[in-house]
Amino acid sequence: MATKTDYKVIGTRPIRHDGYDKVTGKALFGADMNLPGMIFGQMLRSPHAHAKILSIDTSRAEAHPDVLAVVTSKDYPELVSEAKVLNAGPPINLFHMSSNIMARSKVLYKGHAVAAVAANSAHAAQEALSLIDVKYEVLSSVATVEEAMKPGAAKLHDEYEGNVASHNQVSIGDVEEGFRQADFVVEREFRTKTVHQGYLEPHSATAWWLADGRITIWSSSQGHFPVRDRTAAMLGIPSSRIKAIPMEIGGGFGGKTVIYLEPVAAMLSKKTGRPVKITMSRADVLEASGPTSGSYMKIKMGATKDGKMTAAQATLMYEAGGFPGSPVGAATGCIFTPYDVDHALIDGYDVLTNKPKTTAYRAPGVPGAAFAGEQVVDELAHKVGMDPLEFRIKNAAKEGTRRANGLVNPPIGNIETLESARGSDHYKSKLEGKYRGRGVANGFWPNGSGPACATANVNFDGTVNLTIGSVDIGGIRPNAAMQLAEVLGIAAEDVNPQIGDTDSIGYTSMTGGSGAAFKTGWASFEAAQDVKQQMIERAALLWETDVSEVDFNDGVFQRKSDPTVSMNFKEMASKLPDTGGPVVGRANLSPAGPGGAFATHVVDVEVDPETGKVEILRYTASQDVGTAIHPAYVEGQIQGGVVQGIGWALNEEYFMNDQGSMVNSSLLDYRMPTALDLPMIEAVIVEVPNPTHPYGVRGVGEVCIVPPMAAIANAIQDAVGVRMENLPMNPQSVLKAMQEKKD
Amino acid sequence: MATKTDYKVIGTRPIRHDGYDKVTGKALFGADMNLPGMIFGQMLRSPHAHAKILSIDTSRAEAHPDVLAVVTSKDYPELVSEAKVLNAGPPINLFHMSSNIMARSKVLYKGHAVAAVAANSAHAAQEALSLIDVKYEVLSSVATVEEAMKPGAAKLHDEYEGNVASHNQVSIGDVEEGFRQADFVVEREFRTKTVHQGYLEPHSATAWWLADGRITIWSSSQGHFPVRDRTAAMLGIPSSRIKAIPMEIGGGFGGKTVIYLEPVAAMLSKKTGRPVKITMSRADVLEASGPTSGSYMKIKMGATKDGKMTAAQATLMYEAGGFPGSPVGAATGCIFTPYDVDHALIDGYDVLTNKPKTTAYRAPGVPGAAFAGEQVVDELAHKVGMDPLEFRIKNAAKEGTRRANGLVNPPIGNIETLESARGSDHYKSKLEGKYRGRGVANGFWPNGSGPACATANVNFDGTVNLTIGSVDIGGIRPNAAMQLAEVLGIAAEDVNPQIGDTDSIGYTSMTGGSGAAFKTGWASFEAAQDVKQQMIERAALLWETDVSEVDFNDGVFQRKSDPTVSMNFKEMASKLPDTGGPVVGRANLSPAGPGGAFATHVVDVEVDPETGKVEILRYTASQDVGTAIHPAYVEGQIQGGVVQGIGWALNEEYFMNDQGSMVNSSLLDYRMPTALDLPMIEAVIVEVPNPTHPYGVRGVGEVCIVPPMAAIANAIQDAVGVRMENLPMNPQSVLKAMQEKKD
Repeated sequence: MATKTDYKVIGTRPIRHDGYDKVTGKALFGADMNLPGMIFGQMLRSPHAHAKILSIDTSRAEAHPDVLAVVTSKDYPELVSEAKVLNAGPPINLFHMSSNIMARSKVLYKGHAVAAVAANSAHAAQEALSLIDVKYEVLSSVATVEEAMKPGAAKLHDEYEGNVASHNQVSIGDVEEGFRQADFVVEREFRTKTVHQGYLEPHSATAWWLADGRITIWSSSQGHFPVRDRTAAMLGIPSSRIKAIPMEIGGGFGGKTVIYLEPVAAMLSKKTGRPVKITMSRADVLEASGPTSGSYMKIKMGATKDGKMTAAQATLMYEAGGFPGSPVGAATGCIFTPYDVDHALIDGYDVLTNKPKTTAYRAPGVPGAAFAGEQVVDELAHKVGMDPLEFRIKNAAKEGTRRANGLVNPPIGNIETLESARGSDHYKSKLEGKYRGRGVANGFWPNGSGPACATANVNFDGTVNLTIGSVDIGGIRPNAAMQLAEVLGIAAEDVNPQIGDTDSIGYTSMTGGSGAAFKTGWASFEAAQDVKQQMIERAALLWETDVSEVDFNDGVFQRKSDPTVSMNFKEMASKLPDTGGPVVGRANLSPAGPGGAFATHVVDVEVDPETGKVEILRYTASQDVGTAIHPAYVEGQIQGGVVQGIGWALNEEYFMNDQGSMVNSSLLDYRMPTALDLPMIEAVIVEVPNPTHPYGVRGVGEVCIVPPMAAIANAIQDAVGVRMENLPMNPQSVLKAMQEKKD
Repeated sequence: MATKTDYKVIGTRPIRHDGYDKVTGKALFGADMNLPGMIFGQMLRSPHAHAKILSIDTSRAEAHPDVLAVVTSKDYPELVSEAKVLNAGPPINLFHMSSNIMARSKVLYKGHAVAAVAANSAHAAQEALSLIDVKYEVLSSVATVEEAMKPGAAKLHDEYEGNVASHNQVSIGDVEEGFRQADFVVEREFRTKTVHQGYLEPHSATAWWLADGRITIWSSSQGHFPVRDRTAAMLGIPSSRIKAIPMEIGGGFGGKTVIYLEPVAAMLSKKTGRPVKITMSRADVLEASGPTSGSYMKIKMGATKDGKMTAAQATLMYEAGGFPGSPVGAATGCIFTPYDVDHALIDGYDVLTNKPKTTAYRAPGVPGAAFAGEQVVDELAHKVGMDPLEFRIKNAAKEGTRRANGLVNPPIGNIETLESARGSDHYKSKLEGKYRGRGVANGFWPNGSGPACATANVNFDGTVNLTIGSVDIGGIRPNAAMQLAEVLGIAAEDVNPQIGDTDSIGYTSMTGGSGAAFKTGWASFEAAQDVKQQMIERAALLWETDVSEVDFNDGVFQRKSDPTVSMNFKEMASKLPDTGGPVVGRANLSPAGPGGAFATHVVDVEVDPETGKVEILRYTASQDVGTAIHPAYVEGQIQGGVVQGIGWALNEEYFMNDQGSMVNSSLLDYRMPTALDLPMIEAVIVEVPNPTHPYGVRGVGEVCIVPPMAAIANAIQDAVGVRMENLPMNPQSVLKAMQEKKD
């Protein structure tokens, strides 16, 4: 098992390699693309939440003098409705994917794309949209799982019974037996609203379809290999015909794991021979990209009077949006994982609604489930009469505990994280004052992995150019650079990390599931090993000795038989031209064992009794990160996850009108927290190294958003004695709950 | 020794990977760059051939409302005047290099850069140039080696005696003894004029100096690693701070092996924080980039009456232009290499003149020397009474022959090439008609090598993305792709070759010396071997057997013990996701032994007795290429070299006025041949495989320009009985020679 050793680079906080470009405004994002002869695309989107498309007449738009091409779903091949693995990615229903990108017979939500126009300017394209005549037969719509599951509800897809696209169940033991063993049982229902990731950079894609059938795509995404593969699938061409070039990404949080614009820009480019750029407006982002599910949840848990959890049951119904695929599966897998409970039963329902198709959002599905589950855990602790952290520690899952989904825990840092929270200054401090309360919550995310590649080219000045395949959302460039630097005994600043396009680096799965630092860090470690071995060979050549006679430690090559003969990495690099030329290291792997992550959050709130407004007074987030490669980034991830959780807890939601349309599709009306709304978030790094990774890395980016809503709800309960069962806990709903309690 | 075997891909003529983009106008060249916030640079150039710079006042230009920055030599660090190796390149005098890019105390030729301006538009920058006040003290100038070497001639650099920057001498045997053995001796003087490579794409560079001190450069060149290293040297920063991105190149022929604009664009960018693009005009290209030397040469050769060459002597004086570095060294090394002559003495002089600093031009220095030497060889053959090809074959150098410079020939195809020409339909045909004549000439070029890297990423659809470090001037992408494809048993079309930028691929020396197909082809071969080995391991894994049990032949993996168990490359590629993920192959090498190339040309001409105009009636070029990877490209190289040679022979020259200024600096007045001036050039490929290269590759791009001027001169002699000692052999000079002969 890897354990923390005397690392030279890992655990330090070098300036981020991409920092200067970003703070000086020079980093190039998707919409910054500009090419000779480039034209501009715009999307015509459905004004209806649910309608049949009777006809689309594009002739008037095509006659517009500035319009060069119009595209509808007819321009794409028909694809079969079945889940298919594209290269190494997750299975994808290509018919659904392509119908979401460009509606076929029906529109399933307001904002659903029905046609696209390319014109000499974005404004001309916008103007020409009004010249496309679409005849709709408007249908009634469903906006929530409860509406969608009512008998007689409007039905989105013929292929499913009602609007339930799938039902999955995981269980362990006999939950009824568990409840029989319980002295206390708590059962509650919860509801959450649709919320968006809120990345600041809107989706933008530029595509150029060349005469030989090759396509170049520039876009920001969480994975340019999936962009390549999915665009190719929708276009019906081999994926190797596409070169996808990753631009800097202005936030993704899961929302940029899918494609919207790329196949449209590509088809407009095919028709015109010109590079075509399409950029979403903010309203497009909110109405037509993938938010996360609203949900209905019912939780029932039991414990003995001495505080042993005996049973846990959950029914989770998640909105999928217009096409199947809510994150309810992850929610069922994770909701009770922090606990060692013998009897559990979890039912998950994926429910179609007339809203944008949901997409991953940071620990997809789990924050909502934790909002429900962790409130019930808290209530149970109170009934038992235990401190809520003590109760969680007493019941905590550890290495060897079997989860409800049958998996057995590898070494994990659940208890360590809980104990970190319990031992924090924050938790040990006393919170005084009326309307003030403290809450805690726990959370789990399994983290992911996938194929990853890296190449490392040694410059003769001793710096190393590192090319990786993972998009850098949350610091993978410095992270990979540091894992390479540690092996080679050089400074992080002497590594120049960059992300290769799909033609330049081997297949690397997307930056998601908190897997990039694990898999691409590991690939960088392996590429460094390859460099190291070749450099040792060069040293042996230079010293006219055998490789077994050359030691390499802390960046110094040394002759074993005569330690006075030595060279550091830079000196050895300068000798490469005369000892056989350049050195290139490479790695290609698909490692297993990313290791799960746990987080425990403590929050103090104050509720304004006049308005119901909740103020966050203090927030401490402990998290097991395995090994923190670059602690500042890790803290940033933790803080960012908490901030998003606070927004989700207190304010964010899609307001839907009676016609099923979102009415707050701007950042003015879709209220995300700003710095003024927040205290400093204290991030506490817990390091229980992941034994499968050479440096003990686990994922860090997602579990941090799991506990906040539950922790805040528990704090509100502590402050004002009301149990908030619905999100968001905005002023009016808190005030209403307080008034109902009084009544 | 490699011998031609039953290749599947090598020797075929697949469609060029870059073909579609180029014929449809979509390939992006240097000047196609466009970036957000980009501004435009223009260069102020000396109007004088030779002058001291007394002062430069940039204040009025800086006050121009559209001007963002002005740069002069003061903005660059002082560099010492000594030859220095930058990484793996040739030694460079950085003081000279930087003083050529931006004049310091003196201007040494008309067009020499003295300042640069960046403004919001190229026009504003151009306008602002007139606001820069430069005070010059005009000096007298020298335009030819003969002027420059006269006592009392104007002197360009204080550090040399007169204007001779260097003198080198190579010799074998005792040349005086050789002449004593001769029955016939021929001695003649020759002169050639300055000529330009004539690439159609002017130099263009875009640079962006970022806040962290990193610079990105986009330019077309023959080597982006040298662009990086030289720009860094001039700026006084580590080379790894620069990322040089190669754009498509619209011709180079040696002229784009050096830099002019990159450090200027970079400095303007540093001052402004904006990306800066500078593009040369055609006049800039002719007056301020690097043409090849005008020269004065004296040749003396002797032979016995039975046709054995006994002695060869040459004095070669080459114009360097404003800074040392004519290609006279290569000329001294190559001029007599086709011949097995016991006694030879060659003196080379590098002579400073007030013309643009010369740069490499296709087989640098050798075509001029061959123009001189091969005429004397021809005249000697006539004196001996032998057919000129028989005479050359009788005296031909072969494997083991020691050259004048001391090197001993490895296996070469000199005799095979001469015999190919002798056996050609062309040479066996009878040429009839008055004023018509036939000429032959031979030529040698040693070819080069250098460090080269390649990485190969296997797509899961069985295609391979190949990244190389060699700029593609003459077909290195298909060439490298084919060498990789041959190893892997896949089609050339299933390889997607591209050129990596300096951050993405290991150090690769420039595309020059006809070395790219050798070194980068070899790197691609090695990368393929790495892929192959890993794929064999995967097959073994899949078949649960040992790697020694897996055969791989012609793209098929087969189980030795059971040949019915087999998979082709594509099938195996599709299994990669489930057998450990992607496969990346890599190669980094610096191979020796590129193998020399020989060419023998036969040309028929007709001279118009009224005007002296020479028409090329028929042209056959035989050349040993080792192995022709892509014969169409090889033929194209041969034809292109011949065409440039014809232009050089008959028309091209820098017309200089009395003030030392070029007066024909446009493509209208600098007369290069067009398709209308030329017959079909018949290229005859001779294949004597290079034993050091896995596929027998030699270089092909340069030797083809060596014989044309001599062959045409010999043909003119045959046609009208005049020996043309000066280039170009344009109508007036041929007519004059014919009239002088009559007189």
